Amino acid sequence: MDFNAYLKGKAEECNLYLNRYFNGLKNDHSTVYEAMRYSIEAGGKRLRMIMLTEACRLFADDYTDSMPFGCAMEMIHAYSLIHDDLPAMDNGTQRRGKPCNHLVYGEDMAILAGDGLLSCAFEIMTEHAIANKENSYAYMRAIYEISHGAGISGMLLGQSIDVQTEDKPKDITLLEEIHRRKTAAMFTGAVKAGAIIGGGSEKDIKAMGGYGDHFGLAFQITDDILDETGDMAKLGKDTGLDRKNEKATYSSLLGVEKARATAKAHMDAAKDLVRPIDRHGFFTNLCNYVLDRDR
Amino acid sequence: MDFNAYLKGKAEECNLYLNRYFNGLKNDHSTVYEAMRYSIEAGGKRLRMIMLTEACRLFADDYTDSMPFGCAMEMIHAYSLIHDDLPAMDNGTQRRGKPCNHLVYGEDMAILAGDGLLSCAFEIMTEHAIANKENSYAYMRAIYEISHGAGISGMLLGQSIDVQTEDKPKDITLLEEIHRRKTAAMFTGAVKAGAIIGGGSEKDIKAMGGYGDHFGLAFQITDDILDETGDMAKLGKDTGLDRKNEKATYSSLLGVEKARATAKAHMDAAKDLVRPIDRHGFFTNLCNYVLDRDR
Repeated sequence: MDFNAYLKGKAEECNLYLNRYFNGLKNDHSTVYEAMRYSIEAGGKRLRMIMLTEACRLFADDYTDSMPFGCAMEMIHAYSLIHDDLPAMDNGTQRRGKPCNHLVYGEDMAILAGDGLLSCAFEIMTEHAIANKENSYAYMRAIYEISHGAGISGMLLGQSIDVQTEDKPKDITLLEEIHRRKTAAMFTGAVKAGAIIGGGSEKDIKAMGGYGDHFGLAFQITDDILDETGDMAKLGKDTGLDRKNEKATYSSLLGVEKARATAKAHMDAAKDLVRPIDRHGFFTNLCNYVLDRDR
Repeated sequence: MDFNAYLKGKAEECNLYLNRYFNGLKNDHSTVYEAMRYSIEAGGKRLRMIMLTEACRLFADDYTDSMPFGCAMEMIHAYSLIHDDLPAMDNGTQRRGKPCNHLVYGEDMAILAGDGLLSCAFEIMTEHAIANKENSYAYMRAIYEISHGAGISGMLLGQSIDVQTEDKPKDITLLEEIHRRKTAAMFTGAVKAGAIIGGGSEKDIKAMGGYGDHFGLAFQITDDILDETGDMAKLGKDTGLDRKNEKATYSSLLGVEKARATAKAHMDAAKDLVRPIDRHGFFTNLCNYVLDRDR
């Protein structure tokens, strides 16, 4: 089976779960609920959710237990995009081929929608954990890894360093630090959480963490390259923004070719780490897929 | 011992724990960390943290286990204030006697500081839960109650309904709905979480939930009254804002006297619910304290 088609099928499965969750949310369909749903339904590749559930599937054939945690990953990812796009931040206009959240619902609702998605992420995870008492300690560990990836040691700190060094010249070391926190930490959290839920050994969980780190760095480098060379119609978001904002990226610092080589080196390291446990070949294929992507 | 002094002592104990947490945060003291700390150190009565730990103390003499959860409550409360004060929301200028977070650190950092505090709240709770495996199921339930109070069924929804009905005439039913979600839900989450950690029975946990609801409604009504009649110097925040923004409040709809009577009725209901279990008298005293407060 073609890997691209596999990923599409998995994304549809993720969307089913996300839809079910949002349909089940008991409330009066207030604006914030619509705004949250707008950004979740805008789609995306569901990569973080798929990676979490696939990490679970490395160690357990039944991975349905990991779906609520995957949903939480997508909610946290969506929250971070909504807040990143705000006028006070990157002032984006388009995201996933649709107008940014704040352009549709207003800045106030977009702030609340982001806050709501982050809150809901923890609610859906703890709710599932309570309903499955026998596994609750593993779930707790998974929630910790996810909060750690999203928080002040991870994504949040990365975004903050990015904002505070915006107007300053950056070298590769600083850029890698930002990417590691801002992007890789969430991938790391996702695959560690999945491995924990699936019952992986401590060694396996650590290997998956290393995979997430290398994969995330390479993913962000390819993202930078796409911002430089990609097609806005395919990407569904503003391109050339980094150049317009005079933002340092791997490709502006190293040139596109060297940036590609760095991404490849990280993907090779990621593949080495996962090789002994990648029983379906998913995580190896994913590295190749991301290196070759054009959206 | 005078109850006012007792609350002050408890607030100092809370501040010790909060300080210890922020000192222990491993990071490079980036701006977002300073912005988070700024709003946490701005103080406040630490009411939510104290209530959580006192609810634990109803059922367990040693309540130290509940402190990380109390810290999380204060972080969530601080996050909500930072985001509420943003220019796109209430556009506040002063909070707890100091300039609002966005006036000191900029709008971008204030958004991130709020996001960071919400993330850290879940990180500190899950971290504690992992380190104490034997109680992890109770901790998980406590985290759920807190996330439920903060999220799309609670505070977040209340704030959203408040924003979306801003320019519309409100009646008491709608106002109570907003207050119940926006304010009472977090108090409910706090005392239920505390009771769960302390080992209260299901009946006790439910009674505490009812207490939180009535207490929270009365608390918000007294807050509305103080906005109308209070002293900015004592309160340390803008007063008369509701009137300036033509915002409907209990006092504008019912008049100050009737609003006071409604607050008292809710506090009486709260006291009735807690009477059989309030072994130190704390929760009864707290009702009287809030009714009489001038800040």
